[in-house]
Order: sequence, then structure tokens, then C-alpha cells
Amino acid sequence: MKEVKVGLIGFGTVGQGVVKLLRENREDLSARIGGKISLAGVADTDWKRPRKVSLEKKLRLKNAEQLIRDPQVKIIIELAGNFPGVKEMIIDALKAGKWVVTANKALLAKFGDEIFSAAKKHNSEIYFGASVAGGIPILRVLREGLCANRVQSIYGIVNGTCNYILTRMQEAGLDYSSALREAQEKGYAESNPDADVEGIDASHKLAILIRLGFGLNLPLEKIFRRGISRLSHLDLQAASELGYRIKLLAIARESNGLLEARVHPTLVPEESLLASVRGVYNAVYVQGNFVGPTLFYGQGAGMDPTASAVMSDVMELARNLIQGRPAGRIKPEGYETLNPHRLKLRPMDDLIGPYYLRAWVKDQPGVLAKIAGILGKHMISINSVIQREVRDGKSVPIIIITHQALEKNIQKAVREINNLKVVLNPLQLIRIATELE
Amino acid sequence: MKEVKVGLIGFGTVGQGVVKLLRENREDLSARIGGKISLAGVADTDWKRPRKVSLEKKLRLKNAEQLIRDPQVKIIIELAGNFPGVKEMIIDALKAGKWVVTANKALLAKFGDEIFSAAKKHNSEIYFGASVAGGIPILRVLREGLCANRVQSIYGIVNGTCNYILTRMQEAGLDYSSALREAQEKGYAESNPDADVEGIDASHKLAILIRLGFGLNLPLEKIFRRGISRLSHLDLQAASELGYRIKLLAIARESNGLLEARVHPTLVPEESLLASVRGVYNAVYVQGNFVGPTLFYGQGAGMDPTASAVMSDVMELARNLIQGRPAGRIKPEGYETLNPHRLKLRPMDDLIGPYYLRAWVKDQPGVLAKIAGILGKHMISINSVIQREVRDGKSVPIIIITHQALEKNIQKAVREINNLKVVLNPLQLIRIATELE
Repeated sequence: MKEVKVGLIGFGTVGQGVVKLLRENREDLSARIGGKISLAGVADTDWKRPRKVSLEKKLRLKNAEQLIRDPQVKIIIELAGNFPGVKEMIIDALKAGKWVVTANKALLAKFGDEIFSAAKKHNSEIYFGASVAGGIPILRVLREGLCANRVQSIYGIVNGTCNYILTRMQEAGLDYSSALREAQEKGYAESNPDADVEGIDASHKLAILIRLGFGLNLPLEKIFRRGISRLSHLDLQAASELGYRIKLLAIARESNGLLEARVHPTLVPEESLLASVRGVYNAVYVQGNFVGPTLFYGQGAGMDPTASAVMSDVMELARNLIQGRPAGRIKPEGYETLNPHRLKLRPMDDLIGPYYLRAWVKDQPGVLAKIAGILGKHMISINSVIQREVRDGKSVPIIIITHQALEKNIQKAVREINNLKVVLNPLQLIRIATELE
Repeated sequence: MKEVKVGLIGFGTVGQGVVKLLRENREDLSARIGGKISLAGVADTDWKRPRKVSLEKKLRLKNAEQLIRDPQVKIIIELAGNFPGVKEMIIDALKAGKWVVTANKALLAKFGDEIFSAAKKHNSEIYFGASVAGGIPILRVLREGLCANRVQSIYGIVNGTCNYILTRMQEAGLDYSSALREAQEKGYAESNPDADVEGIDASHKLAILIRLGFGLNLPLEKIFRRGISRLSHLDLQAASELGYRIKLLAIARESNGLLEARVHPTLVPEESLLASVRGVYNAVYVQGNFVGPTLFYGQGAGMDPTASAVMSDVMELARNLIQGRPAGRIKPEGYETLNPHRLKLRPMDDLIGPYYLRAWVKDQPGVLAKIAGILGKHMISINSVIQREVRDGKSVPIIIITHQALEKNIQKAVREINNLKVVLNPLQLIRIATELE
């Protein structure tokens, strides 16, 4: 039986998952690729930390260099995370003619062009199916399964930490900080949670989704980004009363040759499938011009699901090696940005949609009239209003759902409303997605 | 720009969708495959029928033979449906070295081995991504995206006609025959609806899913099959009260080396994602031993979604031709049955699960005691009972949800209950899936 040697860099959560999968599913893998995948070694800087998965001593290496220089090793799996020097390491491996598999979304979102150019220049390959939505093969779906479509929109729940926090705020009535603490205790959130809760991680994934779905190489700073840390339990409760759930969505949506690229908390109708995605699960909704609406759901992180995604890439490459075929199947969609329709970015100011606005105001007559007056002045018409029960007899929340309005006008109105003396806290503004199935 | 010539057999709904897609997404297709797909001709026996999509006269052929014999034509797209001689035609095309793309699930379910052997023998290819769940790339997902997993279970809503009828019965309170008539009027059901409503179409799709997911080539008659035509509105209403929806599911589920293969109406918990799949939509839930639960959702039929699936296969093949690479990527998972764990079929009698039973009985004392007595005798314990309001003062429905029970025992008990004089109609039996997310 033919053998393909792989080198693994990083023995963290996902790296351990890969070793576990190679062991537990060995028979299945061999049957499917018609050969054997064997582990040449695992490089990690720290072998003292306790691990969940055991590894023979002879496979434990201190230095990735050893794997990259080993002519027997054909495939390098990079799961070391986003540490300094990882980009250079990947480029080194590509230079050495290795086929590289990585789950490093931050790296690809920031340095995609540089890394893909290196792969092309050295006639090598880089696969990255695990970089978005973990076990859900969404990149493969965009690249292959839906490749005959012009993609019209992508709406993704791609950060399990945020989805867990929002689910707990919704279902258990927790406030943001309690839900975050619970997520940290369960290991779903880091001690410094900013990359997740501020939407940074989701924006990295959106950049990769946009590259594959729309053929644009979008610098990260062009993606509009708001996190979930300012949401209150009141917002989730009010959304629920109005027939919505709040989700952190990564949205890419084309119309008239312009692409919206934005990550923010979003009200989604409770009967939509995305609204039913609970806890740490991920889901990506893709609308194509022929396939119509589709949804892909599963676990977006964790040892086992991410190992599943990494290994499906490794198996594709290994099968090509075993059959003596070149790889390169994902070119050109994966590597080169293909933008035959010359899509451009839509400025955020030009966004049109309904909005959720929540104000804390002094409980006195005429406040709603003032707010409604400012909205009217900016051409924003009101769909519905909830004035909640008084809490302390002094202040009261007012919740407004607008009809379709222009973001620029909303922003102007919000600034004016925030300047009213009767408005006690900055207005909460949440965008609403009504076009979902 | 390199050109790949394709021949299309069949200008029905999906054939027209393919021509439309080739026109409307031409620029995208060319950019993605680095070449041009051009239509050599379309064969159909009837050119008088009105069509939705136009076609130049010079491309209209009477005879598929002409395309199969044309050395310029590299790819044959077979969308002629399941007419006599179609198998031979496909095998002819494979013999002539053509790469074949088909959506013909009935053919593959019945003659998969013969067709795949012919492809192998003549060193050709047959792709069939559109044969299950239309636009949802579920076969590609099983073959590639989840290929590192041992699949544990598949639960599919794979027949849009049935799902439409059940949705209307549930939501509009229609009875079965009114919902069927509505589906026929909307073009979702054939005038002879048996292939859909009796679960035949779903069993064909399950056979293909089992081949790819579990590596078993299962003769169709080994798949247990029950349709939806005996369901009454009362069943949907009662299920709803108990927290369930009724769906026609195609189920393949492994435990202890034995595989269940069955198509039947199923109670699914209302909070599961499958319960939210409404109307003509399809969805396939796949549980893998590493990826965990996943779900793939979209339109399972229709001109445009099916064309999307057909063309993603055509693009893969065309790209290989343009790059001068052999195809063959889906071997061996697609063609050869790979069953390293020597899975065997679980006899239906050995199925274990909870059941929904509904009886129409005479409205007199002691009836429930008699039924409960028979269940008890067969080791079936009762979870809950609903005795519905009296309709005519003479007969009354009794609905029972059992705890986990053995199918063999249930069947024995049902026979005995049906023999009771107080039971007016044969018992309704619906299996319950509790293990879904």
C-alpha cells in the first residue's frame, strides 16, 4: 500500500484532533484514498503542557524546520496558530515544494495574496478548508458545489463564542457579562475575548468567504465591524417580542454591482433557519442565482470537527499523490481573485434596510414625539414602537423598528437623538435582515 | 481560450435550466474554469412541446447518437429521464470515452453497479451530483467535505413533493387529498403521484446516499419503505400538540456494525432543524464521528437548482479537460463500494425506538385498558396518551406515544389491537426520531 508522509506543526487542540482522527479512522481513510497517511512527526515548542491525546516520544519534535526539510514529507499541516513567524514558515514549506494545509484564518485574511502568490510561484499548494466554520465544508461548497452560480449573498454565523453568548442571553435571560463569564468557564471564550466578541474573528472569516464567493480580495479594514459587547438582555428580550432573534452575522451581499461587507449584531426573523442556530454551532446561508437559498450547518470549532475539515484537505492532497496526479484543483477560484463583473464595495453609508433602535429616556411627556420628529426629519419612517414598563419611575426604554431607511440618515438621526437631554444613554442601533428564508 | 464541447440529451425542465445557466452565467463559468463550455447540440424526441427557454434551430437534434458519436463532444449531459434505453445510452457514451453527467437517480439506484463498472472498464467517468437533493451539494459533501469521517447517520428530507404536502397539512389544516391536489395544481406533484408519495423516489435517493456515506450497494428492495398517503390531518395536529412535526425521512443509521435503511413518515422534535424545513425544500442531516451533527439545506428540485448541481459536475470535468488532467477524482468513493467495517443491514424487526400510535375506537369504557394491556403484554410501555374530544359521540381517537420499544413487538401488538372489535380502523403507526439535534 502506498504511503504519504505528513508533518504536523502544532500540537494544540486541533493538532491533537488530527492525530486522534488519523488513529481512529485509519481504516476508513486508507480505503478511501487507496493508500496510507503516516505521521512523520509533530513539531511543537512546548511538550510539557498536559495533552488529551498521547503521542509517541519519537514523533515529538521541537522544530518545524526538520519536517519542512524532510524530503520524505510531502504534506505539511500547519496548526500552530497565529504566532510571529508562522507566515514565513508556511512560505518556506511552499518553497520547499510541500503541499500545505492550514486552518489559520487570521493569516489568510491578512496575508492571503502573499501566501497564495508564493504557492503559485513555487508550483505548490495551500489548502485551507478548516479556516472558516470548522467542520462545515463551506469553502469547498462555494468553490465546487455551488461553482456554477453567481453568488448573491452570504450570511454567516461563523463565531461560536458569540453565538453561545447570545443564545444564553436569549434563553436564560443572562446579561452580557454573565453569559461571557459562563462561556469562559466552559472554554468557549478566551480570557481576553475581544477577537471573538468584537467580531474580529468573524471579519477574518468573512474576508475568506468573500474571496471564494465573490472573487474579491478585500483588505480587512474595509469590512464594517461591530461586536456584541454592547448588547443588553433587554435588546434580546425586545427582539424576541417583535419576532426576531439577535445573531452576530458576517454578511456579504451584492446588488447592482456593489458588495456589502459587514459584521454586526443583526435581528433575524425567528422563523428563519439562521434564528434556530443555537449555542456554539455555526451556519452559513448562501444565496446563488440558480441554486436559490441554501444553508450549511454544523460545529464551527473544537478538536474533532476542525480535525474533520483539516483531514478532508489532507485526504484530497494525499489521494492526488497516491494516484500520481498534480493537485491544484482549487485553482483558480481559491487563489486568484476572479471578479469578472468588476464588483466594487458599497460604502456603508449607502446601506438600506430596516433598523432596531433602543433608547433609554426620561419618563416624561413628549419624549417619543421628539425622537419621532428627528427620525421623520431624516426621512426615516417608523414601523412599530414598544414602550416598555417603567423600571425606576424615572427612566424608560423606547424601542423603535423603522421601515427601510438609509444608513447615512440613520447615523445622522442617531447623533441628533443622542444629543437630546431626555436621552440618557447612547442609542442602541441594530440592523435587521429581512431577506433571509 | 480553450473550449470544451458538451452534448445535452433531454430538453425538459432541467435541460432547459442547463441551457439557461450556460447563457446567464457564461462569464462566471469561463473565469472559473479558465475556458469556455460550448453546447454542441441538444437531443430530444419532441421539439413541438412549448418550452420556457429558447434554443437555436441548428442545436436541436432528434437523436442522441449524433452527440455520442461526435469526437468533438467530450461531455454528455443526460437529463432525458428514466425512459427505456437510457441505461444503454449512458453505457454507449461511456464506451465512446465520453464523460457523462446525469441526474437520473432511479437509474443509479437500480443499476448503479452496472453503470459504474462500465465507466471503470472504459476508463471513463460518470458524475451524478444532481441525483440527490437537487441544488444541495450533498453527494460532494459526503464524498469530499466529510470524507475523513466515519458516517454514523443520515436523515434526509429528500422529496419536496411530500414535504410540501405535509407542510400544507400541518400549517393550513388540509387533509391529505386536498394537499395533494394543491401540490398537483402547483406542479409539485405528478398526476400519478405514487413515486413521490409512496416514498419510492426517496428510497432511490437513500440508496445513493448509502453508497456514498456507508459504502454499501444496497438493492432497493432491502430498503424499508412507507409513504405518506395514509396520514390524516389528525396525525399532524396531534404530533404538533405533542411537540413534533411529521416529515417523510430517508434514514440510514449505523450502530454496532448494523445499518438501518428506511424511508417512512417520522415524528421529529419541533425544535430540530429538520422540523423547520418547510414546503418543497430539502435538507440532509449527517452525523459523522468527528464532525458531529451537520445539516445541508436548499431546493431539492426545479429547473434552476438542479441545473446548478448538473453544471458543477460539468465544470469539474471541463476544468480537468482544459488543464489536461485526468478526471477520476471521485473514485473510489463514488464508484466502488467501500465497506472496511463490513457493515450489514439491520433487519427492520430489530429497530428500537419510540412510536406514535393512533387508534379510532368505539367510545365506550375499558377500551384504553384493552389497548394498554396488549402493549404491556408485548413489553411496550406508554409514555403519554391523548384521548381527543368526541367527534360523533360514537367513536373517538386515542393517541399513544410509547417509550423505546422493539419494532417486532410493536408489529405484534398492532396486529392484536387491530383485531379488537372496539378498534374501528387499522392503527396508525409512526416512528419517532428522538436522536436529532
